[in-house]
Amino acid sequence: MGKEHMSSQFDAELNGIRARLLEMGGKVELMIANSIRSLMERDSALAERTIAFDAEINAMEIEIDQKCLHILARRQPAAKDLRFVALALKIVTDLERIGDQCSSIAKQALELNREAQLKPYVDLPRMADAASNAVREALDAFVQGDAPTAAKVCGNDRFVDELNEQLQRELLTFMMEDPATVGRAMRITAVSKFLERIADHATNIAEMVIFMVEGKDVRHSSHSSV
Amino acid sequence: MGKEHMSSQFDAELNGIRARLLEMGGKVELMIANSIRSLMERDSALAERTIAFDAEINAMEIEIDQKCLHILARRQPAAKDLRFVALALKIVTDLERIGDQCSSIAKQALELNREAQLKPYVDLPRMADAASNAVREALDAFVQGDAPTAAKVCGNDRFVDELNEQLQRELLTFMMEDPATVGRAMRITAVSKFLERIADHATNIAEMVIFMVEGKDVRHSSHSSV
Repeated sequence: MGKEHMSSQFDAELNGIRARLLEMGGKVELMIANSIRSLMERDSALAERTIAFDAEINAMEIEIDQKCLHILARRQPAAKDLRFVALALKIVTDLERIGDQCSSIAKQALELNREAQLKPYVDLPRMADAASNAVREALDAFVQGDAPTAAKVCGNDRFVDELNEQLQRELLTFMMEDPATVGRAMRITAVSKFLERIADHATNIAEMVIFMVEGKDVRHSSHSSV
Repeated sequence: MGKEHMSSQFDAELNGIRARLLEMGGKVELMIANSIRSLMERDSALAERTIAFDAEINAMEIEIDQKCLHILARRQPAAKDLRFVALALKIVTDLERIGDQCSSIAKQALELNREAQLKPYVDLPRMADAASNAVREALDAFVQGDAPTAAKVCGNDRFVDELNEQLQRELLTFMMEDPATVGRAMRITAVSKFLERIADHATNIAEMVIFMVEGKDVRHSSHSSV
């Protein structure tokens, strides 16, 4: 087998990891959208399907991990390719945990859907959109080795944080004014925090991408995880 | 350089990663203990130091990542050693995020310490101890390739989950009975959830260790992240 053949085979394997990661990202985005939709539209069947769907994300994590180990063992990638594969191993774990958080949102939706709606959900879908966009942009930045896009994701993190803080304050007021709202308000608070954690995962991915591309570490400069 | 020499050099590098990971684990355990102690003893100076200490954990993440990339590039480990290094890359991220969560607990402590104590903190130190033990045992299982210890960590995860749920219910009752408690109760709720997330990280590590040792995947069978 000639060197060129080896090399194109190697590229095909790297592209395979890229493609599967993007696919996994697409499924995770769908989970984010569906978990919040199950709450907005009081669609508990959708919440149940979203919880069940998490198994698919989990299976993809294992599969992509295996692909990465395989390429490390057989192809001995160096420099940029090595950093790519090492980062894929970390990113896939972030994506899997986002799946867990969507599943947790759907579980809260199931409970919230059993009761009268406490308030119109205005901020939650905005947070979900922003978090979902952040995940997509962070992954795009990863597969394209695009540091400026990754930097943009890091910069946008405050938006979801601020919506989360604003919603927490609003729910606090509800609870203090009417104790009967406490149970529901606590559940909405939990949903809001899960969305904030999802956006945090996207930021974590983006920070690691900047490191991969530029070889410099911006992790732990803008990152907050409250 | 003879093969034996190469090999002992390689072992020394693997042991270096092991040692630094254990050291990082020790620092993270200290952060867990101090974050909760800053709340129990109303020691805001300790809370401040705990928040500042997170930078040390972050620096260790970057350093261990570099060690792992170096060994992958230069030593081309295979089979068990490869799985070890790949897992080290993932575990170091879990440890770093635990550091973030301790820092978040300390931030809540700063706020809680400004007000009268709402209730005696009985469950929080028990949760912190259990979470800290879980982190230590999961790391020990990793460096020793010890699947039974890892399985024990996974089995114990319910303990922290149950204490968290119990505390949430108790705080809910406080809030419903007296709106003046809502602010503090929400903060204690947040601390409890951070501890539960720390225990989750330990469980995630333990599940990955079982996979590394036995080559079979127990991830996503016992894992919950609500």
